[in-house]
Amino acid sequence: MPEFRKDPVVNRWVIIATERANRPQESRIAERPHRAGPCPFCSGNETMTPPEILAYRDKNSQPNQPGWTVRVVPNMYPALLPDEAHERSTRGFYETMSGAGVHEVIIEVQEHATRLAEVDDKQVDDLVKAYHARMVALRQDKRWRHVLLYKNEGAQAGATFEHLHSQLVAMPVVPREVGDELEGAKQFYEQHRQCVYCAIINADIADGSRIVIETDQFVALCPYAARFSFETWIVPKRHDPYFESASELERGEFALTLRETLIRLDRSLDHPSFNYVLHSGPSGATQEHYYHWHLEIMPRMSGIAGFEWGSGFFINTAAPEDAARLLREALR
Amino acid sequence: MPEFRKDPVVNRWVIIATERANRPQESRIAERPHRAGPCPFCSGNETMTPPEILAYRDKNSQPNQPGWTVRVVPNMYPALLPDEAHERSTRGFYETMSGAGVHEVIIEVQEHATRLAEVDDKQVDDLVKAYHARMVALRQDKRWRHVLLYKNEGAQAGATFEHLHSQLVAMPVVPREVGDELEGAKQFYEQHRQCVYCAIINADIADGSRIVIETDQFVALCPYAARFSFETWIVPKRHDPYFESASELERGEFALTLRETLIRLDRSLDHPSFNYVLHSGPSGATQEHYYHWHLEIMPRMSGIAGFEWGSGFFINTAAPEDAARLLREALR
Repeated sequence: MPEFRKDPVVNRWVIIATERANRPQESRIAERPHRAGPCPFCSGNETMTPPEILAYRDKNSQPNQPGWTVRVVPNMYPALLPDEAHERSTRGFYETMSGAGVHEVIIEVQEHATRLAEVDDKQVDDLVKAYHARMVALRQDKRWRHVLLYKNEGAQAGATFEHLHSQLVAMPVVPREVGDELEGAKQFYEQHRQCVYCAIINADIADGSRIVIETDQFVALCPYAARFSFETWIVPKRHDPYFESASELERGEFALTLRETLIRLDRSLDHPSFNYVLHSGPSGATQEHYYHWHLEIMPRMSGIAGFEWGSGFFINTAAPEDAARLLREALR
Repeated sequence: MPEFRKDPVVNRWVIIATERANRPQESRIAERPHRAGPCPFCSGNETMTPPEILAYRDKNSQPNQPGWTVRVVPNMYPALLPDEAHERSTRGFYETMSGAGVHEVIIEVQEHATRLAEVDDKQVDDLVKAYHARMVALRQDKRWRHVLLYKNEGAQAGATFEHLHSQLVAMPVVPREVGDELEGAKQFYEQHRQCVYCAIINADIADGSRIVIETDQFVALCPYAARFSFETWIVPKRHDPYFESASELERGEFALTLRETLIRLDRSLDHPSFNYVLHSGPSGATQEHYYHWHLEIMPRMSGIAGFEWGSGFFINTAAPEDAARLLREALR
């Protein structure tokens, strides 16, 4: 029987309708992006990108030459530009703000690889180190209220290049989704004197049915009101609003947990397209002590269509408890 | 230069970044769904669907037999079921509600057609008549707080069948997007003693740059803070919260405006995939007099990826003024 479930953070309702998973589908979307021309992210093609901002490379190698493991460059087609003045203006009753911000690309591997689950532990460790270094650096700039890290893998997830990469956008405003999470976390804190993410971790560890991986420092879980089939969150057990505050030990364990979760998703879903986003607290005068950083992985098994756009609701055809069980059993 | 624009109804920021439209893209998604097996929506296959709820048909034809123009049937894989009790419950600190609701499919044409822009005026007129009849009927049932009408056309818009069809979902709760619009419209009304959609129509007709079509009763416009390239809204000039209150004359003119807008989009964008949603006021004790029904058409030129999911923001690479100009010129 279908049921509505309410997300305890943002109070968003999701419809869990497992019977719909059985419906016949005429159309499927091509899974693999095709390549055209040389890949600008491959080692040897470093001159095809703007000069690097950061790279982890051999001591003997030169900037913007081969010999790196992870490389960060400005996005060549940025959604936002850093040197714009941050000004609001009106046009009649319409409001506008100049598009100041930073848009970077994190190239995740030197060779042309297309599945993050298939690269090795050391590489994912370097990747998380690069995420951390750039987020810490961008947070220094007081113009940016928020830094969003996200990744698109596979054509159905909206990846325009198949060579593994993540992206960072620093913005002068707090994005709506993060704002909704902050507001929900604040309300929960005021009512219960507890962080809602800590409450989720405690409830889900006690229950067990939605847990995918539990390590000393992290939990990977399928959230109660998951929007997407096999949606999985990685949440640190230690309460902290900021990913930027994670210790080296925590970052290492986070990298291992991330890689293992992706391997389990790859095995269970036969190499799905997916997005992930890292939500860390915004910068600002007030400490948002009730917030709790985390990573949300969203496999993109089906298109987002009129119902979702029109309603802001989601229909999920896999119960999170079933998804978590399959992910737990995936490596057996 | 990129700019942030604020939607005057829901206060959602959108990034208009036209330079990004020039970026090279490695991957494109297959445009056409492929077919497998007989189409359950084609005339002659009426027994492949559940019995019809409504059909406009020849006087001499029998129910669930050929001879119809538009046919409404229950969705065989419904996201919601009508006979569920509407009950809220909790599991620890999680909230659940049984999934009561109605999910119908409106088959738009008898023959296997895949582009609504290519069917004739009479057919679109019957379609709008069917939308109206079903929405009026579902509104009688006091269990449903809201009825959402939506349509997915083309694989990239999430259509699982290519034979033209729309869908209706009646729900016991007001969906988040409609709730946000209602809340925004209410705030605007309290501040300005005017409907925000009426204000948009007045501002945009005076300005002219975002208008696609203007008829006696309707305006088709590219909204100031469009989320999607070539997003187009059809808004009635006469203020009314409910599509269900539209007169026969208005419904006919709405059908003509809808068809002409779709033809212009087809010509300008070479047969894009698209979604549309019809937003009408929710049912309830209070008259939401500040709301204003409308249709939102969202061409799906690019995938929705990590940035959008992570931020709740949208990046639109076509300025609405440019899109509107191209749509105005499309039939010359």
